[in-house]
Amino acid sequence: MKQYIGVDLGGTNVRVAIVTELGDIVEEIKRPSLASQGPETVLNNIVDMINSLENCDQCAGIGIGIPGPVDTEKGSVTLSTNLAGFTGFPVVDYLKKHFDLPIYMDNDANVAGLAEALVGSGKGKKIVYYVTHSTGIGGALVVDGRLVSGIHGYAGEIGNIVIDRHLKRRDDVNTLNAGAVENEASGSAMVRKAQELIDPEITSASQIFKLYESNDPKAVQLVEEMSYDVGMLLSIISHVTDPHIFVLGGGVTFSRHLYWDKMIEAYKSLVHPTMRDREFVLASLEEPGVIGAAMLCYSQEKNV
Amino acid sequence: MKQYIGVDLGGTNVRVAIVTELGDIVEEIKRPSLASQGPETVLNNIVDMINSLENCDQCAGIGIGIPGPVDTEKGSVTLSTNLAGFTGFPVVDYLKKHFDLPIYMDNDANVAGLAEALVGSGKGKKIVYYVTHSTGIGGALVVDGRLVSGIHGYAGEIGNIVIDRHLKRRDDVNTLNAGAVENEASGSAMVRKAQELIDPEITSASQIFKLYESNDPKAVQLVEEMSYDVGMLLSIISHVTDPHIFVLGGGVTFSRHLYWDKMIEAYKSLVHPTMRDREFVLASLEEPGVIGAAMLCYSQEKNV
Repeated sequence: MKQYIGVDLGGTNVRVAIVTELGDIVEEIKRPSLASQGPETVLNNIVDMINSLENCDQCAGIGIGIPGPVDTEKGSVTLSTNLAGFTGFPVVDYLKKHFDLPIYMDNDANVAGLAEALVGSGKGKKIVYYVTHSTGIGGALVVDGRLVSGIHGYAGEIGNIVIDRHLKRRDDVNTLNAGAVENEASGSAMVRKAQELIDPEITSASQIFKLYESNDPKAVQLVEEMSYDVGMLLSIISHVTDPHIFVLGGGVTFSRHLYWDKMIEAYKSLVHPTMRDREFVLASLEEPGVIGAAMLCYSQEKNV
Repeated sequence: MKQYIGVDLGGTNVRVAIVTELGDIVEEIKRPSLASQGPETVLNNIVDMINSLENCDQCAGIGIGIPGPVDTEKGSVTLSTNLAGFTGFPVVDYLKKHFDLPIYMDNDANVAGLAEALVGSGKGKKIVYYVTHSTGIGGALVVDGRLVSGIHGYAGEIGNIVIDRHLKRRDDVNTLNAGAVENEASGSAMVRKAQELIDPEITSASQIFKLYESNDPKAVQLVEEMSYDVGMLLSIISHVTDPHIFVLGGGVTFSRHLYWDKMIEAYKSLVHPTMRDREFVLASLEEPGVIGAAMLCYSQEKNV
């Protein structure tokens, strides 16, 4: 049974784990990532964590999940907002000086999607589209157990898809398109709208869902609009790739019982009748970050 | 050098050809397809055409391109509008009674996309998204030389993607979504709009492009809107799959010199800066139908 090292590098913490080819975590270490201290400090910390794993000698590769779009050929981050100094830094080459192993890197939504596709809710499905619905909206495409991340790693940048071209840009918020689904239906968009329409003290989507449950009419409208927007996003993806299954994860899905049916209904209204029979499931892994990062190695080994 | 039989079945004509694994046509027969006479007549005609090919004995498989979404596992058409009686008919099984060969089928946009990806304008590119811009708008996704047609063959049904949700349904026209890009920017949509806005006698997109060249203001507006809508469609696809290259074909592209730059400009305005550097090229094959159909066999043989 092969094992791989998975590294889940975030803006606050970093996790390093040994993961089997079946996606089971054998050993894991978590530490602060030191994200503001620059790539060499961050990566030296990771080298140290990998070296302190007990079973490190038996691992067949290292996979890294990192926030931001990744140039998988160069092994660098195309644009890093969370990790100071990482834009363009040759992460994979740096680690190869320390470890004589195959090393792979991809963005965190992509690795989570790969984990769910290989050993999570999408297991056994030929085309899996993973969607994370949280502070932002992102996703990943996995075909035949291989991540299809695109020429520059942007496959799954679905948050920037326009679902209403007549809305204004939110330059006060970010650089996404006017009417981009992330700016209309993500957890942070819901909070922004609720602050404007309901109560400026609102700070979380779960508060909005509580108001929804008590039938606050503005909260009801907000949740219904979000459901429609996400259903529209799923219909768009379906017309582009017709996946066997959608796996949805992220914090907003914790309240799925309140909006899932409406989202599916909207999806069905926007696709041909013979496209309506599709599987939508929740993500199921607790640690998709390290698991998916490790599975990058497994997935690459399956290459033709 | 392997050879395959490619069958390009349309509503008017059917072409049957022997094609090498490099995509070269060795021999070809074209006849009326007898589309209104039912599947058995249509397929018996094809059997006869295949048998009359001179080099038929050396072929390693048969591939069929057919209009409409195809269930590639069952080898049948999910919904046939052009070919009477074909909905659900077991085409592949029927032909297997006549030929002891591997037989594959997919929809015509998919096979054209496969041809362009393997031996046409997309050759050598890892992820190719083919878009046909003609009477309708359709497409295909090819990854690592393999068609990704989706669970029910709907990958590439991009004509039904909503690019303006505030527009009305066109129930007088078809069952596509309100604001679907095919109903706003296809060749037939351009003609419909030109008939309403310019001259009810207009019957072709090329007439509209002629008026555009003579600076008719309404024709100019129509072409500019079409360019933006298609650019938006391409940006949507890019966020979902981030292809290495887009290959664009279809009759509207014959006038590309009049709108291509505007289309690319619109595309760039709707994607992140690091996504703007993308290849958009014209389809180059004269017979993508039979070539792509034959290449279905080649592509399937490459399976892991």
